[in-house]
Amino acid sequence: MADNKKFGNKQYRGKRTSAKMNSAKSPVRNKKTSYKNPKRTPRKIEKPSIKVAFLGGLNEIGKNITLFECEGDIVLIDCGMAFPDGDMLGVDLVIPDFTYIEQNIDRVRGLVLTHGHEDHIGGIPFLLTKMNIPIYGTPLTMGLLGNKLKEHNLFNSAKLTTVKAGSRVKLGCMEVEFIHVNHSIPDSCAIALHTPAGTVVHSGDFKIDCTPFIGDMIDLHSFARLGHEGVLAFFCESTNANRPGYTATEQTVTASLDSLFNEASKSRIIIATFASNVNRVQQIIDCAEKYGRKVALSGRSMVNYMSVAAELGYLRIPQNMMIDIDMLSRYKPEQVVLITTGSQGEPMSALSRMAYSDHRKVMVGEGDFIIISANPIPGNEKTVGNVVDELLKRGCRVIYESMYDVHVSGHACQEELKILQKLVNPKYFIPVHGEQKHLRQNAELALSLGMDKKHIFIGDIGSQVEINENYIKELPPVPAGKVFVDGLGVGDVGSIVLRDRKHLAQDGLIIIVASLDVYDGHVISGPDIVSRGFVYVRESEELLDEIRGKSLEILEDCADNNIHEWGTIKNRIKESVSKLIAQKTRRNPMILPILQEV
Amino acid sequence: MADNKKFGNKQYRGKRTSAKMNSAKSPVRNKKTSYKNPKRTPRKIEKPSIKVAFLGGLNEIGKNITLFECEGDIVLIDCGMAFPDGDMLGVDLVIPDFTYIEQNIDRVRGLVLTHGHEDHIGGIPFLLTKMNIPIYGTPLTMGLLGNKLKEHNLFNSAKLTTVKAGSRVKLGCMEVEFIHVNHSIPDSCAIALHTPAGTVVHSGDFKIDCTPFIGDMIDLHSFARLGHEGVLAFFCESTNANRPGYTATEQTVTASLDSLFNEASKSRIIIATFASNVNRVQQIIDCAEKYGRKVALSGRSMVNYMSVAAELGYLRIPQNMMIDIDMLSRYKPEQVVLITTGSQGEPMSALSRMAYSDHRKVMVGEGDFIIISANPIPGNEKTVGNVVDELLKRGCRVIYESMYDVHVSGHACQEELKILQKLVNPKYFIPVHGEQKHLRQNAELALSLGMDKKHIFIGDIGSQVEINENYIKELPPVPAGKVFVDGLGVGDVGSIVLRDRKHLAQDGLIIIVASLDVYDGHVISGPDIVSRGFVYVRESEELLDEIRGKSLEILEDCADNNIHEWGTIKNRIKESVSKLIAQKTRRNPMILPILQEV
Repeated sequence: MADNKKFGNKQYRGKRTSAKMNSAKSPVRNKKTSYKNPKRTPRKIEKPSIKVAFLGGLNEIGKNITLFECEGDIVLIDCGMAFPDGDMLGVDLVIPDFTYIEQNIDRVRGLVLTHGHEDHIGGIPFLLTKMNIPIYGTPLTMGLLGNKLKEHNLFNSAKLTTVKAGSRVKLGCMEVEFIHVNHSIPDSCAIALHTPAGTVVHSGDFKIDCTPFIGDMIDLHSFARLGHEGVLAFFCESTNANRPGYTATEQTVTASLDSLFNEASKSRIIIATFASNVNRVQQIIDCAEKYGRKVALSGRSMVNYMSVAAELGYLRIPQNMMIDIDMLSRYKPEQVVLITTGSQGEPMSALSRMAYSDHRKVMVGEGDFIIISANPIPGNEKTVGNVVDELLKRGCRVIYESMYDVHVSGHACQEELKILQKLVNPKYFIPVHGEQKHLRQNAELALSLGMDKKHIFIGDIGSQVEINENYIKELPPVPAGKVFVDGLGVGDVGSIVLRDRKHLAQDGLIIIVASLDVYDGHVISGPDIVSRGFVYVRESEELLDEIRGKSLEILEDCADNNIHEWGTIKNRIKESVSKLIAQKTRRNPMILPILQEV
Repeated sequence: MADNKKFGNKQYRGKRTSAKMNSAKSPVRNKKTSYKNPKRTPRKIEKPSIKVAFLGGLNEIGKNITLFECEGDIVLIDCGMAFPDGDMLGVDLVIPDFTYIEQNIDRVRGLVLTHGHEDHIGGIPFLLTKMNIPIYGTPLTMGLLGNKLKEHNLFNSAKLTTVKAGSRVKLGCMEVEFIHVNHSIPDSCAIALHTPAGTVVHSGDFKIDCTPFIGDMIDLHSFARLGHEGVLAFFCESTNANRPGYTATEQTVTASLDSLFNEASKSRIIIATFASNVNRVQQIIDCAEKYGRKVALSGRSMVNYMSVAAELGYLRIPQNMMIDIDMLSRYKPEQVVLITTGSQGEPMSALSRMAYSDHRKVMVGEGDFIIISANPIPGNEKTVGNVVDELLKRGCRVIYESMYDVHVSGHACQEELKILQKLVNPKYFIPVHGEQKHLRQNAELALSLGMDKKHIFIGDIGSQVEINENYIKELPPVPAGKVFVDGLGVGDVGSIVLRDRKHLAQDGLIIIVASLDVYDGHVISGPDIVSRGFVYVRESEELLDEIRGKSLEILEDCADNNIHEWGTIKNRIKESVSKLIAQKTRRNPMILPILQEV
């Protein structure tokens, strides 16, 4: 082990280790693939293990963060946030639990980013508030992160290193290789971690687009090289693992947009898409140029993303093309395109405000040609549908759902996943990024390609596995979970607070207030009944009177019988009033007796 | 008009009127279609109008109810309920506002039902509580309604008349013709209302299945006859108007189920579907018979529906086929099928309880083969997905979404809608049953078939139109809307209560209680701070102390300055505490100051 470590720290090079891996491979591998050196060689050195802890991104969409540990060095890949589920009432966003990182901070060598989406970088400000880990990523990713850190006043202290796809960074005993992939934001990468235990590959978010709108095709050659050299484990994203076939090329969107711009002729065009989808915005700008339209942006996050992208040269904007949203009215409808946020029907987004006539600067109606260039994320179908309905009611023409090919996913479908799995050709396969159904389906794909079932591991948040050339083994879980951010509070809203919010949301509450005599416990003032979210008070005075009467009866009864323990008194009120209300209304509001001593 | 009325009331017969309609038709009609008598005849009698009020089912899914009025007689078609949207916190179900019916009760001749689904009959108990209207429908529809009315103790007083598809009922000046259609429940009908103003047709919910699993194909001949005789207006459902093509026949489900039963071989089979889908349950029972399995039912509504269907002969159950759910454990997995509710991921449903290990009688795990034979209704995608994930985690094999053809819709897609529109060949077209996008799309279909845009009317809840052979005209709206049912309360939860529930759900509440001296207003006891759903109290004592201090300061300040008006004092507390909390937490809990005088 000591020897190994020394070797790993001082002399390690990805290729050489990989070559050794091949030679040390078990016969299982040799049966399946023919390598340059098919002869078995005696095992020379027992290689160390790599330990992997999943702090997020499994059995959930978003909040991606994975921890890799080898010979005492730790490297993190991504640190994202997630949006709250419907039952996380009042929660603004969800971030990973950083406890396990804090416990091992001495050994953390760096955080490596695959790309600049919120579900991969959104947790970083909260992480850096606790500990200042060096961060590595490609130019656009780091540009977007920098912007975010400035908002949190963390930019100046942050240790940020920008790297190009194709380059390598040494972090402790591990060497990190960035590999260019296609995705819905430029500068996306997969990561190969060359470690003393062998090479592991993490796909990040990817798809295979042979004709992307911006930049090069995914660097399949590098994946092929890694597969040939030998990969210990492949961590592969699973978002679209349920979708057969392949994701259409972005060129199909170009064609659709062109024909819709043509069709829109005399109308103002408004296009909603993801604020981070630089490719899509470029497509729209190019189309606008062709049809002689000016472009305005709407929505704070859209403006943010695009200014970073333009500054770094990822967005090609013709001169005099962009206009301020305030200038829209100076142009004829057929002279402008407005690109806006709100493709998910988010209530406070620009498009929603337009739909509900609540936007300060843009009024929509007949003569507006609106294109929603995004698919609803599961759970958002209803809100997107509502926004479409409102726009239609105002007389807008609306292109939504799959009416035209105005959107392609940023994630690989089944055939693409299979291609990458075969190229990487790992010994162990670990599906990541997705709910259980996606992880399972990705595992099914691996099985269908001949992977041994025992070589596949499906984890959960907090799972930890040890992987080496002889086995993959689950270790005891590490601390991990969901930390809720509500306003400025991080982690102060937990399960009890959420339970109360849910209770209040269902049936409201009834407060029963009384002042009691400090000597004999008899009622001096009240009981007063205050209710919120329960019934319309003016039409329910009779019921409220009954509640008051019942409470008074219990308070006096307690005083008469020398029951002065407030917990007991309150419980008796709660029970009786609950029963009364259930009987009269079949509802179950929260009941809060409050007593004061005078 | 007087003559007309007399004619209508005394001599009216559907067919004869229809013939008159033809001869009196304006040239517009003759241009488009060749009738038996193509010669123009001079207009003989000016026909009356029919007025139609939409009390529900437009710009919403569910709660279908339409009011038809001619020469002082009123007929209602359907009286459904809807499920609450996500923002109707704590609401159990939504029913129509019956005000307009109450205002005109003297003239209401009857309520006619198209079929037995909740969105068409679910509002009836609430209607009958207010007024006892005679109700007409086919046997299964009336059987299901009867069951429902028994639960509400309304059965004995209700005036129920069972009719067969194909028969006619006279209601005032109108004659109601029931026309057999295909849908996801047997005994579904469209309605032709033969009125002195002409014939209007309401499609109800329908699809065209040439090879349905139970019963006959939709009675296209009757629609053809009506179209030939002349139809004034066609009210056509729009649920699937966005879906191109046609809905697959139910026979595809039979084939899929058969192959899945074959595949499941040694596993226990659990199938979730809509409780009302009698056809589907029959398909499953037939499959179970073929593969030698017993069948158990799970879920109260499933048992209810199926007992009515079996009693009335709509479900063919082989002898000794059904077993009680308690007996499941006495059989081997491969000997049973469990049919259950919960296909929409409803939290309290049988399937959800199984998924979350909360079902008293059924434990699921490896060896269970679970089929979800239903598509998620928009808005339910996430909850259905969660249930699938939980089942997968327990090791179940799960067939969901479009993995196999285990479900077909009960509604017509675009090609079917077009066929029925052409057969009925109406003068005016009014899309019903659907959100704006569905109504618009159905109207687009009519336009594509050559309908004049001015002859199409897209309404809203409360819209009223007047239709006669010369024009279609919108009238002032009638009272209509959504009435919320919460527990036993009908209509006592309104917008203020919902607003409070939403506020409480977002950030919880803070209660500030103090007892004041009745003479000088100074604080005698308190202020005490109680919070729920705001922060975890034990970790936020400092903040709560600050709130207490700030409140005390204001109370004493008011007393010192002789401010004794409680409204003023409470507002000052609310404002200051709000500001303090926003500054410290960026949250906005409800703040409730409660004062007592001692």
